[in-house]
Amino acid sequence: MRDATLRDVALLAGVSPRTVSNVVNGYAKVTERTRQKVELAIAELGYRPNVLARNLANGRSGQIAVVVPYLDTPYFAELLQAVIPGARERGYNVLVDQTDGDPRHERDLLRRSGRAFPFDGMIFSPLGLAQEDLPDDPSLPLVVLGERVSNGVFDHVGIDDVAASRTATAHLIGLGRRRVAAIGDQPYPTGEAAQLRTRGYRRAHADAGLPVDESLVIGTPRFNRADGAGAMSRLLDRDDPPDAVFCYSDLVALGALHVALARGLRVPEDIALIGYDDIEDGRYSNPPISTISPDKVAIATTAVDRLLERINSDRPLPGVEVRAGHRLVVRHSTAGRAAPVTN
Amino acid sequence: MRDATLRDVALLAGVSPRTVSNVVNGYAKVTERTRQKVELAIAELGYRPNVLARNLANGRSGQIAVVVPYLDTPYFAELLQAVIPGARERGYNVLVDQTDGDPRHERDLLRRSGRAFPFDGMIFSPLGLAQEDLPDDPSLPLVVLGERVSNGVFDHVGIDDVAASRTATAHLIGLGRRRVAAIGDQPYPTGEAAQLRTRGYRRAHADAGLPVDESLVIGTPRFNRADGAGAMSRLLDRDDPPDAVFCYSDLVALGALHVALARGLRVPEDIALIGYDDIEDGRYSNPPISTISPDKVAIATTAVDRLLERINSDRPLPGVEVRAGHRLVVRHSTAGRAAPVTN
Repeated sequence: MRDATLRDVALLAGVSPRTVSNVVNGYAKVTERTRQKVELAIAELGYRPNVLARNLANGRSGQIAVVVPYLDTPYFAELLQAVIPGARERGYNVLVDQTDGDPRHERDLLRRSGRAFPFDGMIFSPLGLAQEDLPDDPSLPLVVLGERVSNGVFDHVGIDDVAASRTATAHLIGLGRRRVAAIGDQPYPTGEAAQLRTRGYRRAHADAGLPVDESLVIGTPRFNRADGAGAMSRLLDRDDPPDAVFCYSDLVALGALHVALARGLRVPEDIALIGYDDIEDGRYSNPPISTISPDKVAIATTAVDRLLERINSDRPLPGVEVRAGHRLVVRHSTAGRAAPVTN
Repeated sequence: MRDATLRDVALLAGVSPRTVSNVVNGYAKVTERTRQKVELAIAELGYRPNVLARNLANGRSGQIAVVVPYLDTPYFAELLQAVIPGARERGYNVLVDQTDGDPRHERDLLRRSGRAFPFDGMIFSPLGLAQEDLPDDPSLPLVVLGERVSNGVFDHVGIDDVAASRTATAHLIGLGRRRVAAIGDQPYPTGEAAQLRTRGYRRAHADAGLPVDESLVIGTPRFNRADGAGAMSRLLDRDDPPDAVFCYSDLVALGALHVALARGLRVPEDIALIGYDDIEDGRYSNPPISTISPDKVAIATTAVDRLLERINSDRPLPGVEVRAGHRLVVRHSTAGRAAPVTN
């Protein structure tokens, strides 16, 4: 069977080829009813837009870039897994780059975005850059992910990290724990994600009328398993170890859990643990770990939507601040047997 | 301080700018001694090649593509983490694409490689394609990763999967286990990785003079945690469950481990488990899992070296078959307390 063409889709949907093209390109001027008709026809015929031909005609590459600090961090891998199909459905190929959080590489990418760059736009998750390093050119097709807040120029998509961290810490305090440690703090000016989480941790203590023992706030260079394991070792070497730990990522929590169990502690009886990110590893760990679950699908979908709107706009658009949802997921590492068993 | 130029590097190294350019571009005609002098000067000055200018001059993009089936599979994420810095050191930017193992998308990428594609070459890890789908154009700058063998046209880098799987299974048999299951088999014509692993599993049984109980060879659609958990549930529901399992990936083993522990079994006393890939998750799981560790750094480095050699060659090069090393890593999930404790 030959591949379906744009004309086939137009015939089946009962619209003009131009309208099909508008839907495929994500232009806003199509009514919802028409869009649905066209999308049904596309699905029925298995139509795949001829991206190369389209790009030759409109001077675009049909490619967007997604830039993350580390590809081997499951949170980013899961986010990409949600971005790529969404963009592909809209006719865009996604290419991924990683920066290792190196500020030079991050700045270099930003400088090239939109010019001499084989991409129509970029979804960017910075790590090494301070707020003032982000561009102030409103014509850049740029959507920023993560913890920083939009400067009104680019679009930003993230969750409310302070509120989420406050919820995680309050969950531990609500279980009756009184020596709650935090693993993952990082210094200004970078490390904004960490600072927002520490702020939420402090607020939960204030809410409960509890003082923060500053010696229980442990800094780590990254949010990975090795950092979590090292920090947990130091905490457990103390004469007065904590009875609960809020970890700033699930990877940190998995490293900390490994050390706690290796030392013969019971989780959560002797020490309760909560992570952040809701990666798959934490659902299958033994015991499974409680976590903050950001709505990754909403983050990915919104980022792609915003970026395509910017790419397809004739004039610069004002920067938009989008907050995706998050929820507390309670598993064995804080609730013990009370937690529902996965699988 | 202004950025160092190619001329600065040449002055410090005492060579011509052309020689510096040859080193930066990875051309083979530079002596080892000269290369070292230039690389020292590059490191001392913190020189970063002006890739855009270079590409304008030589008609190249300065970009290579690495294409994997799934970005959220830790094995691929760890491999990418090894490929990207290696390529960047040689002045190439790496962009990553994922195919979801969709044969249409994989074929499409191959068709476009080398033409109308903003890349100088591609490192490709196919999943959905059969051997005969791979291209036979020797001028394509293409290096294939994974289990299939070079057809003499493109370069291929992988490990000896049959030998590795034989070693993993022999390790379980050597512990005195007599009902060794296998989780991860997949049917012809795709699923070559799985078929090679099943072949190694059979050989280890033949080596030991043991019959294979075909009902213990469990097929799975993918190599992920959910597949491992589902297969393990079916195995443990039997009247005659296995006493050991060879899992075709660490993710499969982590899913299987989760189910075994949730059912109250002791690992390895009641059931021993070994995985494949040596991903970080398996080192931090509780208990840590034994595995086959492919030399990912060698795979990544060799793939980049071969690709740059193809890109920089004036004439088509014959396809080369490269076998990277692998080793058996024994941890708690097979050896019990005898295994060295990580961390």
